[in-house]
Amino acid sequence: MQQITSLQNPRVRALRGLQDKKRRQIEGRFLVEGGKLVGEALAHTVVHTVVVEEEKAGHFVALLEALFAAGAQVLVSPRRVLEALCETKTPQGIVAEVDMPEPQASAGYLVAMDGVQDPGNVGAIIRTADAAGFDGVLLGPTCADPFGAKALRGSMGSIFRVPVIQTEELAEKLAALRREGYAVLSTQLDGEDFFERGPLPTKLVLVIGSEAEGVSAQIRTLATHRLRLPMGGGAESLNAAVAAGIMMYDLSRERE
Amino acid sequence: MQQITSLQNPRVRALRGLQDKKRRQIEGRFLVEGGKLVGEALAHTVVHTVVVEEEKAGHFVALLEALFAAGAQVLVSPRRVLEALCETKTPQGIVAEVDMPEPQASAGYLVAMDGVQDPGNVGAIIRTADAAGFDGVLLGPTCADPFGAKALRGSMGSIFRVPVIQTEELAEKLAALRREGYAVLSTQLDGEDFFERGPLPTKLVLVIGSEAEGVSAQIRTLATHRLRLPMGGGAESLNAAVAAGIMMYDLSRERE
Repeated sequence: MQQITSLQNPRVRALRGLQDKKRRQIEGRFLVEGGKLVGEALAHTVVHTVVVEEEKAGHFVALLEALFAAGAQVLVSPRRVLEALCETKTPQGIVAEVDMPEPQASAGYLVAMDGVQDPGNVGAIIRTADAAGFDGVLLGPTCADPFGAKALRGSMGSIFRVPVIQTEELAEKLAALRREGYAVLSTQLDGEDFFERGPLPTKLVLVIGSEAEGVSAQIRTLATHRLRLPMGGGAESLNAAVAAGIMMYDLSRERE
Repeated sequence: MQQITSLQNPRVRALRGLQDKKRRQIEGRFLVEGGKLVGEALAHTVVHTVVVEEEKAGHFVALLEALFAAGAQVLVSPRRVLEALCETKTPQGIVAEVDMPEPQASAGYLVAMDGVQDPGNVGAIIRTADAAGFDGVLLGPTCADPFGAKALRGSMGSIFRVPVIQTEELAEKLAALRREGYAVLSTQLDGEDFFERGPLPTKLVLVIGSEAEGVSAQIRTLATHRLRLPMGGGAESLNAAVAAGIMMYDLSRERE
């Protein structure tokens, strides 16, 4: 274990660089905060460097042992280094630099995000996809980054368990899936009642649009189904993650 | 229309006081930001004072006319006053002081929050209750305040359309509902499969617990049903608002 005290330390500076989305994409690595997420990362991907707060190392003895065994480099540092590396106001005392999981080719039930901007929504949709037994998540280029700190907190470790694919070309990807026989379900306020939909094929991709604009015109055009959740009261729409959750759970029950 | 330029102006200071939860409860008033929410407030409750940004008054001509007609006091001010009154980083240029809506005695399908701490979740659950046709929302004392700026943004105006009742005595309230013949559905990870539940009475209250701890022990005890959503994958739980949405929509379909 190496002791680090300065924010100018080159390792610390390199790790701080991963707070930036572009840097994460270039390196193929990101930061995870807290004992639970670091443990999930260790179970599912490669952990490179771990920074643990001196005063809190005692809380993480078992985890640190497993990290050593896996060959991770462990740095011990004062609280202010953790504060600089973490986006939470009260860091839990451990942060790790890990490889982005390698998304497996997946088939079956997918959810795609077309411009979901709120990182909390992106994280919650990944978490729900995992719970609903979906096989993968596609993210278009205008979505919040699923490897940012807030989305990671929202996904609660599911990012390591569901294949998450970021693509610059969401429309082309969806068109290719459609050619392969996938139903492409666009969720839009002027669609047909989701619960009155006919039978669906065994492969489908549910597309969730942006909070403000919904699914983009290009992707609406190539959808096989255009669906909306019924709304009572005066509500015009639902939170994107809530709407995605209602639909994913209903679709996964049909699949059984 | 009165011109106001100073943050020290007594009206401005009084309005800023409403950024505090206690103050809101004492006054029975709260602040709503943005043209859409101010319009919703005008349709559903009493609007007292409105502050509009000088440069943006032109965007709100029709709304201001309606506000004048309703007897609201309109103050015109520079941007920095709006910035002081609003919690959003880029205020939309209008903020209003409005009465808390008077919750009507409601019966039928209710949702109760037992310690939901994230204001975004509180807002999203109120929004979903409205969309799912629920008749009212109960909030226990440890929940985030539904009249705070973040929860209001999340509720998207639904706070004016669904009766929202904050209570210091959630357990007593639920016990009273149970005596009146309500099913009390506690959502907990060790419950029975939500989708395998038997038939329910026509009056029920769905209880959503805190993000970290779930439904409290006291309320679990007095529940008539203890239910969990099935989880595939490795996910242990869902975001509170997503779980609430899946269950509210499924319950409301049974009701039809």
